[in-house]
Amino acid sequence: MNIEKMVEIGLLFEQYKELLTEKQREMVSLYYEEDYSLGEISENLGVSRQGVYDTLKRSEKILREYENKLHLVAKLKEQEKFLKSIREKVVDIKEDLLHNRDCANLIPKLENIEEICRELLK
Amino acid sequence: MNIEKMVEIGLLFEQYKELLTEKQREMVSLYYEEDYSLGEISENLGVSRQGVYDTLKRSEKILREYENKLHLVAKLKEQEKFLKSIREKVVDIKEDLLHNRDCANLIPKLENIEEICRELLK
Repeated sequence: MNIEKMVEIGLLFEQYKELLTEKQREMVSLYYEEDYSLGEISENLGVSRQGVYDTLKRSEKILREYENKLHLVAKLKEQEKFLKSIREKVVDIKEDLLHNRDCANLIPKLENIEEICRELLK
Repeated sequence: MNIEKMVEIGLLFEQYKELLTEKQREMVSLYYEEDYSLGEISENLGVSRQGVYDTLKRSEKILREYENKLHLVAKLKEQEKFLKSIREKVVDIKEDLLHNRDCANLIPKLENIEEICRELLK
């Protein structure tokens, strides 16, 4: 399977899986998360290969449509970019503080901020 | 109209409006955002009052169902809580830094972090 597509559908699935039917959710999970083949899914669920294929195609379409409307994956990527930026600035400030004994006590407080930012992305 | 419900639907609408039909979106906006009465919406859109009422009720149900599955409003409230916490800690650290001339130059860097956190919530 195409790695890029696996990553793309994986991210979409993480955000929007609750909006799929149980059957769609199961097939997408088996195919994209557990790397089952169409044949294996077909055998395991007692559905024709064509049926599995059609359900996967339909699910991918649905997931992309939700992303077009809600942009949750795009927003998450933006947030991760900002978080990385905050971490770099915190490291930067910490290095400055380490050179000044009077201010070194502020480092735990800074680390606290960094921790909260990490929570923000959960 | 009940203020609590107005706030609740307002928040849900902000997150999930793109998942409503255009007609649903228009009516919810007129009723909850622009404070139109059922009668006014009915007159403006050429729909019976009952029709407006039914569409609003259906839309509210849809919005709540999406929140039950995606929890976007709940997550946003959590994030705002964390952001407030970061701001308080930044103010706290800034006060400490103001007492030490050597470290006062770090204040702009801290404010930078706070600014990024604000971006995180957009």
